[in-house]
Amino acid sequence: MLVRAGVDLLTEKGFSATCVDDVLNATGISKGSFYYCFSSKEDFGQVLIEDYARSFNARLDLWLQEPDTAPLQRLLNFVHDVRANMQHHGFHRGCLIGNLGQEIDMLPDSFHGLLLTIMHGWEKRVNACLLAGFDTRATAAQKRTCMQLARYFWIGWEGAVLRSRMEHTPEPLDLFTTFYMAQAAAALGVKPPACQPPATPRVSPARPAPAQTVQAAN
Amino acid sequence: MLVRAGVDLLTEKGFSATCVDDVLNATGISKGSFYYCFSSKEDFGQVLIEDYARSFNARLDLWLQEPDTAPLQRLLNFVHDVRANMQHHGFHRGCLIGNLGQEIDMLPDSFHGLLLTIMHGWEKRVNACLLAGFDTRATAAQKRTCMQLARYFWIGWEGAVLRSRMEHTPEPLDLFTTFYMAQAAAALGVKPPACQPPATPRVSPARPAPAQTVQAAN
Repeated sequence: MLVRAGVDLLTEKGFSATCVDDVLNATGISKGSFYYCFSSKEDFGQVLIEDYARSFNARLDLWLQEPDTAPLQRLLNFVHDVRANMQHHGFHRGCLIGNLGQEIDMLPDSFHGLLLTIMHGWEKRVNACLLAGFDTRATAAQKRTCMQLARYFWIGWEGAVLRSRMEHTPEPLDLFTTFYMAQAAAALGVKPPACQPPATPRVSPARPAPAQTVQAAN
Repeated sequence: MLVRAGVDLLTEKGFSATCVDDVLNATGISKGSFYYCFSSKEDFGQVLIEDYARSFNARLDLWLQEPDTAPLQRLLNFVHDVRANMQHHGFHRGCLIGNLGQEIDMLPDSFHGLLLTIMHGWEKRVNACLLAGFDTRATAAQKRTCMQLARYFWIGWEGAVLRSRMEHTPEPLDLFTTFYMAQAAAALGVKPPACQPPATPRVSPARPAPAQTVQAAN
């Protein structure tokens, strides 16, 4: 419950503006219990970030590793999933990692490497998804293109999530997706994916269902 | 001095995590003097945002209204200017408007419309710049393309600024710029601009020089 409330607060308010008392008030948990579990606000923040990343990675893998779907369609399905989730929350929730990025110079040093490692993990996942379109025959240039497209996706995506939160509409997400997909398809030499709501991915026993704690934008 | 210190603090810390005492400590100004000038922290914040927007718009106009330069080159020159400014500050400063966007649901209601109006003003400026390439002969489809490209620019740009701050490198700005310029050039049917540092724009008496208070990313 503490972690859930903490992720909610940090996703909406950020780390600097959230104090331990906010978390205690939101959960009704005593200060003694809090400090029994966590040595400090920094320690608590690290646990929240790691929990968020774990849940988010599971969701990302679920869409991006769908074997019978073309790579860009997998990515588009992920986008639709997040879009629906943001809409469900009235576009009041952003991305915890992006939010914390905005206050990066205010955060404990221990968070910096953690946040970058998480974002690089997301890039690696999209990169692997795009590379899957070449089986194992991608040239060095194609590998470079996939890596750049993966990185470009997350750069633009965070901007789109931010703008959708500011305007409380899905239109920035949609505009970004349309432009990105067209450019990625051209760069990869494939057709742009159809803009359809995602089919529910098959969940194999080896792959977890999206964790219920992933409530934020992505 | 108060406004300058306030913009610096808000650009690095955001609004929620900055208190009036931070501003007073940074400037040595007394609480009495502060409340003589501003009725509240909200009032102070509004003045900062408006001051930032005014300075930033002047800088944007300086690059985007350069008559002897092709539209995408004007935009690229602006990008180079901001990149140099961010580099000067070690990529520790972001965009005040983007920063505040991340904490949008924590801000006073009066800020919401203000921030959106500013971002729409930036979009209008880029749109007008892109339309200049068609003189006055743009078709309805071309007008729509320019408007979408202008909006897409700011969506991706805020994401790139965020990422450059997180990584303290210009590489995210460069990657975004390369992809965006290639796509925009194709959509407009022109050659991508050369990637060169900006020439200093000519400053006509009618157009102000970039205000010294614009220190943040954009």
